[in-house]
Amino acid sequence: MTDEAKAFVPGHVTGFFAVERTDDPTTTGSRGGGLTLSDGVTVTVRPDTETEILLDDVSVDIGAVEGVLEALGIEATVIGETDLPLGSGFGVSGAMALGTALAATDEFDLELSMAELTTVAHGAEVQAGTGLGDVVAQARGGMVLRLEAGGPRANELDGLPARPRVEYLTLGELDTSDVIGGDTERLSAAGDDALSRVVEQPTVERFMYASRRFAREAGLLTPDVKDVIMDVTEAGGEASMAMLGETVFALGTGLSDAGYDPHVCRVDPTGATVLGGSHRDQAELQPHASDGK
Amino acid sequence: MTDEAKAFVPGHVTGFFAVERTDDPTTTGSRGGGLTLSDGVTVTVRPDTETEILLDDVSVDIGAVEGVLEALGIEATVIGETDLPLGSGFGVSGAMALGTALAATDEFDLELSMAELTTVAHGAEVQAGTGLGDVVAQARGGMVLRLEAGGPRANELDGLPARPRVEYLTLGELDTSDVIGGDTERLSAAGDDALSRVVEQPTVERFMYASRRFAREAGLLTPDVKDVIMDVTEAGGEASMAMLGETVFALGTGLSDAGYDPHVCRVDPTGATVLGGSHRDQAELQPHASDGK
Repeated sequence: MTDEAKAFVPGHVTGFFAVERTDDPTTTGSRGGGLTLSDGVTVTVRPDTETEILLDDVSVDIGAVEGVLEALGIEATVIGETDLPLGSGFGVSGAMALGTALAATDEFDLELSMAELTTVAHGAEVQAGTGLGDVVAQARGGMVLRLEAGGPRANELDGLPARPRVEYLTLGELDTSDVIGGDTERLSAAGDDALSRVVEQPTVERFMYASRRFAREAGLLTPDVKDVIMDVTEAGGEASMAMLGETVFALGTGLSDAGYDPHVCRVDPTGATVLGGSHRDQAELQPHASDGK
Repeated sequence: MTDEAKAFVPGHVTGFFAVERTDDPTTTGSRGGGLTLSDGVTVTVRPDTETEILLDDVSVDIGAVEGVLEALGIEATVIGETDLPLGSGFGVSGAMALGTALAATDEFDLELSMAELTTVAHGAEVQAGTGLGDVVAQARGGMVLRLEAGGPRANELDGLPARPRVEYLTLGELDTSDVIGGDTERLSAAGDDALSRVVEQPTVERFMYASRRFAREAGLLTPDVKDVIMDVTEAGGEASMAMLGETVFALGTGLSDAGYDPHVCRVDPTGATVLGGSHRDQAELQPHASDGK
């Protein structure tokens, strides 16, 4: 058996959000709403003498992952595998950070709870400037409402009791840090309006309506994304823009019905999880099995 | 298509707990720790002119389910199907209550969030006197630590990042209401000690140690359960007693290694969820599909 541990972290598409900045990365973050997806990132962590990060077989620099390894005080090879498009609003950097924290906790017997390791990953992602709310949503799974911003000790989460089919179509890349690093006042006002709407009426339909209205009011719609959303609406479906990516997501068969050829998945009900057959599962929990180490 | 909705709720085995009583069912509950199981209850809700509750094809009275239906203001046939033993510490009544709330929210378009419907089910379970902490753990999934008691608005949850294989063996039934309705001072002191131990060192091994110690200190071990736990320990494994049932649960191959023939499952990572193909999924989210209604 190779000495490694694996975790799966769902992708996360944000529908609307409001930015909350403090001096502390664990209380900085975003309120808002999003969908975690059955399409996600499988992260493998292997102890190593120096740190290397691979994503789909390509060596990459991901600040959030480096931050997690540093906070945990370990060196490792981190291997991410995903079918999700990169830089397109699916929270891949957050998934890599959280998956690294989960798999490393398992592999190195770090004695961290879910809230503790989620805090580490959230803080690293905020410090890297690549996301504000993906990690806490990915840790929970489902259709997540982030009622208060920040890591697990600061935030407050709720969810919608639904796991619809999701279709998505990516038209290009957007740089998250450009948007969330700039002036976010107008965006945050629109995000808080959207959140209030969904809290008042926590349904899937209201979520999609609030997301579309947020995208328009926050001034984030690109012309191409706008055209696709209008096509879906004209075909009688529900679609909006993934924050922040040049990506349209729709429920049910919204994009297919409008004549597009989208990726198809579902809302993931589970959230981030270590995968069976991991280090801890095989070795410590079956004390009589020879684990070859 | 039959007009019905379904939900799955994992079983929940409590390892240790401390009772918190207030005048309000939504702030009454228990702190403690437990495992949700991939073995659970599938609950189907069908609108009906009067309420009937079936569990494995037998008509039953389950106060927590009746309380949920009453709180939601609906009449329905509720059908539970499970492989879990009844009255043996697996949280079947909590699963029935939470599954009813989830499926009913879906079927009747009730516009309730996960926290709201979990609050309804938790409150109904507390008022029926059949459980204090199962529902909130079952809503979350995983190896759950309940740091503060009560429903979602009052409690605080954490988890251990592991999903080990679980074996269990049921020797008989115990009446939960007899124990949690009586004097719980000694039990709660032992439960808070156990919780502190696991919070300090959030590992699976520590969880099992704290559970065994709680069972002994709280004076809840029956002679038969004690014998089986000792057999598992002698065979080098980890086991404890399900609170509250005449049930032994073990990690990995603990019971098998000791020569028993246990049920085998895993820790469920997901928590309670509506099942695909439900009313909402088919009808509202695919607006163009003919749903036959």
